Amino acid sequence: MAINSTQIELLRKLLRHNAIDRVVRILQKFRPTDIAAIFPFLAPNELQSLLDILFEHGDVADILLEIPDGILEEDILLNLSDERIAHLLDQSAPDDAHHFVTLLNEERIEGILKKIRPSQRERLRRLLNFPPESAGSLMNNQMITLPSEISAQEAIETIRGKVNNTEFVFYIYVTNEAGTFLGVVPIRRLIVADPNQAIAEIMVADPIAVFATDDQEDVAEIVARYDLLAVPVVDENFKLLGVITVDDVIDVMREEATEDMYLMQGLSDEDRVYSPVSKSVRKRFPWMVLNLFTAFCAASVIGLFEESISQVVILATFMPVVAGMGGNGGTQTLTVVTRAIAIGELSASEGKVAVLKQLTIGIINGAGVGILTGLAAWLWKDNAVLGAVLFMAMLLNLAIAGFVGAAVPLLLKTLNLDPALGGGVIVTTFTDIFGFLAFLGLATALLPYML
Amino acid sequence: MAINSTQIELLRKLLRHNAIDRVVRILQKFRPTDIAAIFPFLAPNELQSLLDILFEHGDVADILLEIPDGILEEDILLNLSDERIAHLLDQSAPDDAHHFVTLLNEERIEGILKKIRPSQRERLRRLLNFPPESAGSLMNNQMITLPSEISAQEAIETIRGKVNNTEFVFYIYVTNEAGTFLGVVPIRRLIVADPNQAIAEIMVADPIAVFATDDQEDVAEIVARYDLLAVPVVDENFKLLGVITVDDVIDVMREEATEDMYLMQGLSDEDRVYSPVSKSVRKRFPWMVLNLFTAFCAASVIGLFEESISQVVILATFMPVVAGMGGNGGTQTLTVVTRAIAIGELSASEGKVAVLKQLTIGIINGAGVGILTGLAAWLWKDNAVLGAVLFMAMLLNLAIAGFVGAAVPLLLKTLNLDPALGGGVIVTTFTDIFGFLAFLGLATALLPYML
Repeated sequence: MAINSTQIELLRKLLRHNAIDRVVRILQKFRPTDIAAIFPFLAPNELQSLLDILFEHGDVADILLEIPDGILEEDILLNLSDERIAHLLDQSAPDDAHHFVTLLNEERIEGILKKIRPSQRERLRRLLNFPPESAGSLMNNQMITLPSEISAQEAIETIRGKVNNTEFVFYIYVTNEAGTFLGVVPIRRLIVADPNQAIAEIMVADPIAVFATDDQEDVAEIVARYDLLAVPVVDENFKLLGVITVDDVIDVMREEATEDMYLMQGLSDEDRVYSPVSKSVRKRFPWMVLNLFTAFCAASVIGLFEESISQVVILATFMPVVAGMGGNGGTQTLTVVTRAIAIGELSASEGKVAVLKQLTIGIINGAGVGILTGLAAWLWKDNAVLGAVLFMAMLLNLAIAGFVGAAVPLLLKTLNLDPALGGGVIVTTFTDIFGFLAFLGLATALLPYML
Repeated sequence: MAINSTQIELLRKLLRHNAIDRVVRILQKFRPTDIAAIFPFLAPNELQSLLDILFEHGDVADILLEIPDGILEEDILLNLSDERIAHLLDQSAPDDAHHFVTLLNEERIEGILKKIRPSQRERLRRLLNFPPESAGSLMNNQMITLPSEISAQEAIETIRGKVNNTEFVFYIYVTNEAGTFLGVVPIRRLIVADPNQAIAEIMVADPIAVFATDDQEDVAEIVARYDLLAVPVVDENFKLLGVITVDDVIDVMREEATEDMYLMQGLSDEDRVYSPVSKSVRKRFPWMVLNLFTAFCAASVIGLFEESISQVVILATFMPVVAGMGGNGGTQTLTVVTRAIAIGELSASEGKVAVLKQLTIGIINGAGVGILTGLAAWLWKDNAVLGAVLFMAMLLNLAIAGFVGAAVPLLLKTLNLDPALGGGVIVTTFTDIFGFLAFLGLATALLPYML
């Protein structure tokens, strides 16, 4: 189904020769997502031709929607005229149009909004009022609503005229005259219902809904937990404002999973494989400097023990083993706990048990690994005291690693911060500093027996 | 909507006093997902009472389905009689029943299957033929199919009787006499169609389908890419075998995101916050030992330079800075590239460009961080040669980090392995060994100028 490389080469040639009709015929065979996948392979002039054709003949909105945000923003929207963007926004569902608007330069937005249909402009403005990553900014506010008094038959007749405009229709929403949300009717129920039955009797009353100000991550969690296809969005007076569909929730879930992995490593959302080198460098460098600072803190701990190291130089050899193993253990714990919080398996209130459990795991694994390390070092360097020091330092550092790896994300959660936020650097800074301190400190105390 | 802690305490008390009617009344107010959330708070005897009540009065299948696999397997299914499990499997949709079966002890399965309805047993056996994590093992093989000759009106009448049994119905599938898949009819199209129109004219012909042997991760990718609510599953002759719905795809996506984060840290799927300590220890220990082995490899590299360190002991202080920064840079690159592969933004064929880009980012950031490190060390230790050595080692190590961080997941992907597989340990082993080698090697070469 995806377009293969021979077809892409043919398309590029046809685009260069401006063979519009043939390009249109080929594109008709593919879905918007597949057409979007061609974009990264095109030279700038080919891209321009393709856009010309799509604006004339194709589902340009559906296609552009499938292009990664970074490319869409910098390679496409930036080069489109205000008129074309206005056309694009007019053709899109309100939630998709809203997504395009968020990728535009601030200064252009007002001018472009002036050029679109008043009804669409009105819907867009309402969406733009909600903060980014809120339910309100994600919803489609053009859904089918019906009053509760009408019959199933009347409902079917009413939606017959509307259903082609709003593609993703599986539920109908029921409101009273004031717009207050009353319930939801799955379309399949309309089919099997007695035609004369009132909508109010067919609908699911008291369905799950979210507030427009809810965070999109919480919305995704609710949709996943209750297996929903769409979730209605209401305001604080339970007035129905819009609907979030599962396809958008899937995008949010992917985005949030990426964000969690990225946050743990101090990566910016905008740092993607397709980002220009300059952007990736700019985004990663501050994190590198922060890491460098923590590395120097750890180094200064080592500096305190230079005297011991100069007397027993093999300490230098084993030092990174203790710190590194602590880093591994801490990061493992951090991953388990952060992920559990993200998918709703662990709340901050159950935190104490989780921390104790991870501490216990750290102590047991620390003892095991400590014995192996101690024995290996004893055999290798023929120094029993070194072995004992390594055992103790490893045990202590893995215990700390378990404690810190579990406590940091829970603490961040309690402070209403993202639990994944830079957890990696915090935990490894702890395990580095404490690892060096434990190992070199113990070694210094036992130095006379080690020489 | 979720049950609050006061309600949980009340329920526990009622369960202990065997106040069945009151428990049933309370539970009726909540959804299966919410009831499932009570389980972790119950003592064993309370859990037993609740199960007794649910098997008698509740949607036990829907509730158990929402309990995390680990708890379900060890605390519940293990203690249920074969009769109860058979009852559970009879009550469930085939795909849900199949999920329960995969959590049972191998030896029990045959005995339990003998106790369930023959039609359900037949459906289950067909699902059990497919490998775990394949589309076939995920699908529901009890869907509504219709022949293409009938009219819209006849279709509506046919499904009227069936629609209550199969909850998640938004599409009807059309097959010919041999069972070959012809197309799909969204229920909304049935509503707006002329009652006399033939199904063949209303259906979407040539819809997206997956093969039963496809990997579940690829299925999730297709559902996400094409914004599907359900995807039909066919065999190699395009015979329709079943349907995978988006709610199951969401579970797969979460599971796969967890798996990717876990694999990068060498964690086992079964190592969760709610796992017993003994299991977490058992699962993590082998990885710890592997890490220990790589740490000793890195240590042995340091061991080669003990002579240099004994002459210039400050080398010991800076050694972990170079290795650690390389580890950070490598892990960042690894995260960006692994995630891009996972969400389909990067295929192995575009790998060369991605590797070159990450190498470039590594060189640029390495130069920047190298200058800072060199300057800081020069000022701190008043040793310009040490600063120069640190600069060069940092630049080299971050270049290597960029290269390895991008190349490892792409190589794993080319070898048809999971790109996230243990990438963390491979990359940091590289950056540790190479970091120590570059720093201590350069320092040894320039030793006379450093003293």
